[in-house]
Amino acid sequence: MTPEEFRSAGHALIDWIADYRAGIAQRPVRAQVEPGDVRKCFADTPPAEPVDAARLLSELEQHIVPGVTQVQHPMHFGWFPSNASPASVLGDIASSGLATLGISWESCPAATELEQVVCDWLRQLTGLSDAWEGCIQDTASTACLTALLIARERVTDYCESRGGLQGEDKPLVVYTTAEAHSSVAKAALLAGFGRDNLRLVDMDPQTQAMSAPALAARIEQDFADGCLPAAIVASIGSTGVTAFDPLAEIVEIAAEHAIWVHVDAAMAGSAMLLPECRHLWNGVEHADSISWNPHKWMGTILDCSVFYVRDVEHLVRVMSTNPSYLRSSVDDEVTQFRDWGIPLGRRFRALKIWYHLSIDGIDAIRARLRRDLDNARWLAAEVGQAQHWRVLVPVQLQTVCIRHEPPGLSGAALDEHTLAWVGAINRSGAAFMSPSQLDGRWMVRVSIGVEATTREHVESLWKLLRAHAEEVAAG
Amino acid sequence: MTPEEFRSAGHALIDWIADYRAGIAQRPVRAQVEPGDVRKCFADTPPAEPVDAARLLSELEQHIVPGVTQVQHPMHFGWFPSNASPASVLGDIASSGLATLGISWESCPAATELEQVVCDWLRQLTGLSDAWEGCIQDTASTACLTALLIARERVTDYCESRGGLQGEDKPLVVYTTAEAHSSVAKAALLAGFGRDNLRLVDMDPQTQAMSAPALAARIEQDFADGCLPAAIVASIGSTGVTAFDPLAEIVEIAAEHAIWVHVDAAMAGSAMLLPECRHLWNGVEHADSISWNPHKWMGTILDCSVFYVRDVEHLVRVMSTNPSYLRSSVDDEVTQFRDWGIPLGRRFRALKIWYHLSIDGIDAIRARLRRDLDNARWLAAEVGQAQHWRVLVPVQLQTVCIRHEPPGLSGAALDEHTLAWVGAINRSGAAFMSPSQLDGRWMVRVSIGVEATTREHVESLWKLLRAHAEEVAAG
Repeated sequence: MTPEEFRSAGHALIDWIADYRAGIAQRPVRAQVEPGDVRKCFADTPPAEPVDAARLLSELEQHIVPGVTQVQHPMHFGWFPSNASPASVLGDIASSGLATLGISWESCPAATELEQVVCDWLRQLTGLSDAWEGCIQDTASTACLTALLIARERVTDYCESRGGLQGEDKPLVVYTTAEAHSSVAKAALLAGFGRDNLRLVDMDPQTQAMSAPALAARIEQDFADGCLPAAIVASIGSTGVTAFDPLAEIVEIAAEHAIWVHVDAAMAGSAMLLPECRHLWNGVEHADSISWNPHKWMGTILDCSVFYVRDVEHLVRVMSTNPSYLRSSVDDEVTQFRDWGIPLGRRFRALKIWYHLSIDGIDAIRARLRRDLDNARWLAAEVGQAQHWRVLVPVQLQTVCIRHEPPGLSGAALDEHTLAWVGAINRSGAAFMSPSQLDGRWMVRVSIGVEATTREHVESLWKLLRAHAEEVAAG
Repeated sequence: MTPEEFRSAGHALIDWIADYRAGIAQRPVRAQVEPGDVRKCFADTPPAEPVDAARLLSELEQHIVPGVTQVQHPMHFGWFPSNASPASVLGDIASSGLATLGISWESCPAATELEQVVCDWLRQLTGLSDAWEGCIQDTASTACLTALLIARERVTDYCESRGGLQGEDKPLVVYTTAEAHSSVAKAALLAGFGRDNLRLVDMDPQTQAMSAPALAARIEQDFADGCLPAAIVASIGSTGVTAFDPLAEIVEIAAEHAIWVHVDAAMAGSAMLLPECRHLWNGVEHADSISWNPHKWMGTILDCSVFYVRDVEHLVRVMSTNPSYLRSSVDDEVTQFRDWGIPLGRRFRALKIWYHLSIDGIDAIRARLRRDLDNARWLAAEVGQAQHWRVLVPVQLQTVCIRHEPPGLSGAALDEHTLAWVGAINRSGAAFMSPSQLDGRWMVRVSIGVEATTREHVESLWKLLRAHAEEVAAG
């Protein structure tokens, strides 16, 4: 494909994208396909003859789009917001267009240095001190794994340079809660700690936040049992119910024993753009690592997770490689982001943050976040006042956990009711929410925060909820 | 930014990209900046006021582009080709435009199913049997870490579900060579094996390929010493000298002891698109996992590494998580790619492979690869015939490892000479190559294979090499 062919196909694609984004509210939210439906639109064998870009664009519309759950849709209230601000999409396109190779400073100095710039901008915007330095990783899952690996190496004084984890005498232990994101347990297992050494600390039954006294007691017990506490992963805005672990107390307990504290603020990091929310991670300055995802609520297109540490030298010592084919004469003066994470090759992701913050502007982003907080408070108030409806957990951010509890229904029958009405709405395509479990029972998470979602959409959701749930209840 | 603002800025950006790609040969290859030059073009504090897209485009040109080493430049012969076929760039832009969320089948059925389709197409195109199933990961580094994690769990019968690696009695051992990519040692250390348990097996001094007898002997010795051989990472086209470990012999040795074999074909996987190259990975069907990077020579824009395994059930058992908020009614019928790797959220990367294979067509891709092999043979022949020049390693693919060895120069003085002439060329911006070490001495890798590189460019490189090296030698 020549640059001129690219130009003409590119213009057609931009028009298609602009129309697609403009018309997204007219599409069903949840993909209206059954398993295998998309796959069977494509040949089992690779294309034998070249196909032109216009044909692919029409296949994109016909075969791919029906298989997309529209997370940019104003009636999407599932999982967490996965906003892709059009400004950040432009930055992502610029990255594709430059087609750089990020394996070392020398391979693309601009990618390294703009990443330093934008990570520092986000540090300032979330109120973190300049003791922190950050980089961009793909997801909070990878960032959490990175954090647990460097925690493992700190507590063992670099066992990787000797016999590895298998050479350690004392079992290394990781602390989190059952409410933590599934990626935390996954990271602990992949890092080699083992499920037996993953402690799910008791929680406050009201808020699902980690109990600090339970944590302290568990650590004491582990020391007494000859174990070595290695890391605590604190959830700042958990996925299930947006729980906030008591970070100020956690870092104090950790400090006594030099235990690594990783702050998983994947979702709620965006809230820290608002000064009035920062009390929710009080104590953060005494943690060791933080990750949060601009690709969620803030709205820099996925994948874009920022990862901050206080001790860069330690991070680099654990993750660094320095083969001869990657050396250059300026190695002593520059940052090599390959040594800040797992992959060697890295895309130029800083561009999408730069575009997003520059074009949208922080004031507009903050105003939108405040709008969403207001909408969540409004919905919680409505649900709280309605007969047979319940807000299950105090609303701290933009996610409202609710249940319709008609008289006489409990236990498995209530679960069945919940899954029936939310399933009916999701299948209809009119709105989408993810059900989730709390204390072993299903509830519905209404996660507000899509860029396009206004108060009207939340009002119309509430009507939809009542209509469906009450209709299902009436049989 | 509204869809209409996006449309107009998007068109301007597409024009800029088309011009950029068309004019790339007029730019210097290596970024002409010093450390810190890019960073100081940007304010230390985040933008207070919104900026329009036109202004960013001009900053992109003025501040970013000078800091980009042009790996799409026809005179780029550094590292490995990192092609970004314009067709694949379009697919990448489509992915940005759709702005999907890939955390489960339900969140974007099309992303899951098209990924299955294109991974299967690439499987067929590289001549692998249908015993293999694949997914897309970001890089071969991550794929190698994933492979070593699942190898660790197979040999320990899932130690992650018990006491982890620290609960194992026998030291687990990983085998590779000093010529393997730096990411292999990094993966072994991150997976917790420890440097003491990473065996760098002896190599054939001529080809830098692993010695199979040395491997067999080392494994026997380790068993005798009470260790547990866990995994062998075979390099198929190493980074330094494009060495090919003797895979057929390695898998036979591994089979005797049920040792996991991971095939790191990051670069040379692209060559397997050519039936005449497949003898280079004879034995591959008996390996356990394979990764290779379409984002290198084949030319699907970074990041795009494919990872194949034979035992999907095992992979999923090691990597899976199934929290309530990610469940859906079709979970039993669908593939959840989050359980095939580390990150939960995944971009829609299948689109860029689909676009690339469909628009360029496999015949054109294969013809280009054959052109590059021809060019490498031509250069090797020229260098081999020239006085005081030497081809250091037999050329098996598209990388030619060379040295200018003027009479009377050896050891450190020869190193100084090599770094001087390659440094002079790289700094000039006329061409770019990465020096690398072989047996502790510097050499120059001429890695041919940029999409835009024709025979003329290779001829002009050879003139440049002679002129610079001979001038430097003459003092």
